[in-house]
Amino acid sequence: MTEIRAADILAASCPMPIADYPRVLLAHGGGGRLSQMLIERVFTPTFANPALAALHDGARLDVRGARLAVSTDSFVVSPRFFPGGDIGSLAVHGTVNDLAMCGAAPVALTCGFVIEEGLPMDELWRIVRSMQDAAAGAGVPIVTGDTKVVDRGKGDGIFVHTTGIGLVRDGIEISPARAAVGDRVLINGPIAQHGIAIMSVREGLEFDSPVESDSAALNGLVGALLDACGDAVHVLRDPTRGGVSSALNEIAQAARVGVRLEESAIPIAEPVRGACEILGLDPLYVANEGKVLAFVAPERAAAALAALRAHPLGREAVEIGEVVAEGPGRVVLHSRIGGSRVVDMLSGEQLPRIC
Amino acid sequence: MTEIRAADILAASCPMPIADYPRVLLAHGGGGRLSQMLIERVFTPTFANPALAALHDGARLDVRGARLAVSTDSFVVSPRFFPGGDIGSLAVHGTVNDLAMCGAAPVALTCGFVIEEGLPMDELWRIVRSMQDAAAGAGVPIVTGDTKVVDRGKGDGIFVHTTGIGLVRDGIEISPARAAVGDRVLINGPIAQHGIAIMSVREGLEFDSPVESDSAALNGLVGALLDACGDAVHVLRDPTRGGVSSALNEIAQAARVGVRLEESAIPIAEPVRGACEILGLDPLYVANEGKVLAFVAPERAAAALAALRAHPLGREAVEIGEVVAEGPGRVVLHSRIGGSRVVDMLSGEQLPRIC
Repeated sequence: MTEIRAADILAASCPMPIADYPRVLLAHGGGGRLSQMLIERVFTPTFANPALAALHDGARLDVRGARLAVSTDSFVVSPRFFPGGDIGSLAVHGTVNDLAMCGAAPVALTCGFVIEEGLPMDELWRIVRSMQDAAAGAGVPIVTGDTKVVDRGKGDGIFVHTTGIGLVRDGIEISPARAAVGDRVLINGPIAQHGIAIMSVREGLEFDSPVESDSAALNGLVGALLDACGDAVHVLRDPTRGGVSSALNEIAQAARVGVRLEESAIPIAEPVRGACEILGLDPLYVANEGKVLAFVAPERAAAALAALRAHPLGREAVEIGEVVAEGPGRVVLHSRIGGSRVVDMLSGEQLPRIC
Repeated sequence: MTEIRAADILAASCPMPIADYPRVLLAHGGGGRLSQMLIERVFTPTFANPALAALHDGARLDVRGARLAVSTDSFVVSPRFFPGGDIGSLAVHGTVNDLAMCGAAPVALTCGFVIEEGLPMDELWRIVRSMQDAAAGAGVPIVTGDTKVVDRGKGDGIFVHTTGIGLVRDGIEISPARAAVGDRVLINGPIAQHGIAIMSVREGLEFDSPVESDSAALNGLVGALLDACGDAVHVLRDPTRGGVSSALNEIAQAARVGVRLEESAIPIAEPVRGACEILGLDPLYVANEGKVLAFVAPERAAAALAALRAHPLGREAVEIGEVVAEGPGRVVLHSRIGGSRVVDMLSGEQLPRIC
């Protein structure tokens, strides 16, 4: 009796507006506004600690003088095999990239599997091999793991969880809070490919050549950028769930600056643009898994672009905008025809289970 | 076409006996023989690296002179609230304990949630609070996390994933391979409580006082043991999935030694023993979440017992057996009436989704 009351009292203290959200919705995991609400009201104040408060892609941690970065992600992408990758390679790339966004080289990965009873054994094998190929490609060992199996109907084939530990480069402090007025915003290539690759499979869209996910490990590319520009690189962010727009909004809010985007500069491949139109999606909100947004001090922007373009994953790197003092916390898109509009954070769930 | 063929060829190379196991079974995640087969044939050779090959509860990693331990676990326990804990506290204790079993003090935890759409928001809140209470109790911050939501019917309320990073104590090398003939096998209290607490809820068993899970963070207890006995502590292992029997079998196999257990010495609480009889379970195979098996050099065994008993989580610590040269790789139980039997690894799945 006492125990039940304690649970009820605890439940009543829930900081989410229970009347509006009595249950968890898909959008609470979608990377947009409801995700942010859950993080800001439930997770961050409860787990309160300085590393978490930084709201970075990964946590910074000093252990006996070693400057570590730690990042963790669960992957529930559906379908689990898609053009350009699968849930295994994605789980490795996603976590390696979160470390890279802290300016860290990956040192070790861990993996956890939650498998639904009945998953074909050869699919598990292909996923495990794909993880190893991706990890070897990024130059990082998978050092420990765990497997759980749940009964049929209580999972969805396989969920993969990865955690990465990285070593932050000396002299480097990458942080969303460091976005400064005048910084140029660079991206290493065309956007929205991952989300469209997944949605095309789900919706049965046919292309002359299928849109492939851009899923890739960015640690090598980021390493080259930091070699070239060091501390002039202020912010790095991989625009995954919620796309370029949500990532830039988070940075603008964290640094209390405005971001001005040039629509005509944002690279999008033609088939991706076409698919977005068919599907009614704004490519600025569609997930990427091999892209990095880099905020670089203006005097080093040209060198940064050159460094990115010299790397196989950055050949199509471009400058897409800059940090401005006006409209702190806001991202404004300037269109080809001279107009402008505020590009908000993704509200609700646009593309469920994209990663 | 080429792509499909490549996938088929890869699938055909799967090292699991596909004819026998075309699909993943619950038992592949149960901690027994099928789990071991999956690890030994699929994960370890594919992810091949020295840290993984050690087959420890966690990986050892040296980063710039810091001796790190890393451990990762997915938690799928059903029901998610049970006497003595919930999936949140269990996820913290389980990972903290895996680090402790490497002789490491926890430095940071990460968490990942896979939530089924529709989970009551107040349940999520209770779980998050419970994680934080458990983490604070163990003295470790939760530094970063991730949340994914899957559609209704594609999950089971909530799965929680935790990864822990710990710092291994100087001068300590805990490893299953260090079990040596003559070592005494100690345990810090009565066995099988966690598994029976879960099964009692599932089966609707009624007790005068309900059996509670022993779920607890063991880092403080292990710290006290290492303070007292240092390098005389050769092996530490928490007997979770698969119970005391599977844990001891793994150690016996890793060190190529025999383990002799005294049945009469193994502590079991009366209600737990009764429930095991009703449920047809052997308590040696039932999961624990707050127990440690310690292999200690004989000359320090008394000191080790004293250190354990001086800690709140070790008051009922006892010696239950010793390491012998006979029967390498085997665990033999000597019974009250003078007989003996081999206690094998758990084959198949005894208690699904116990953690």
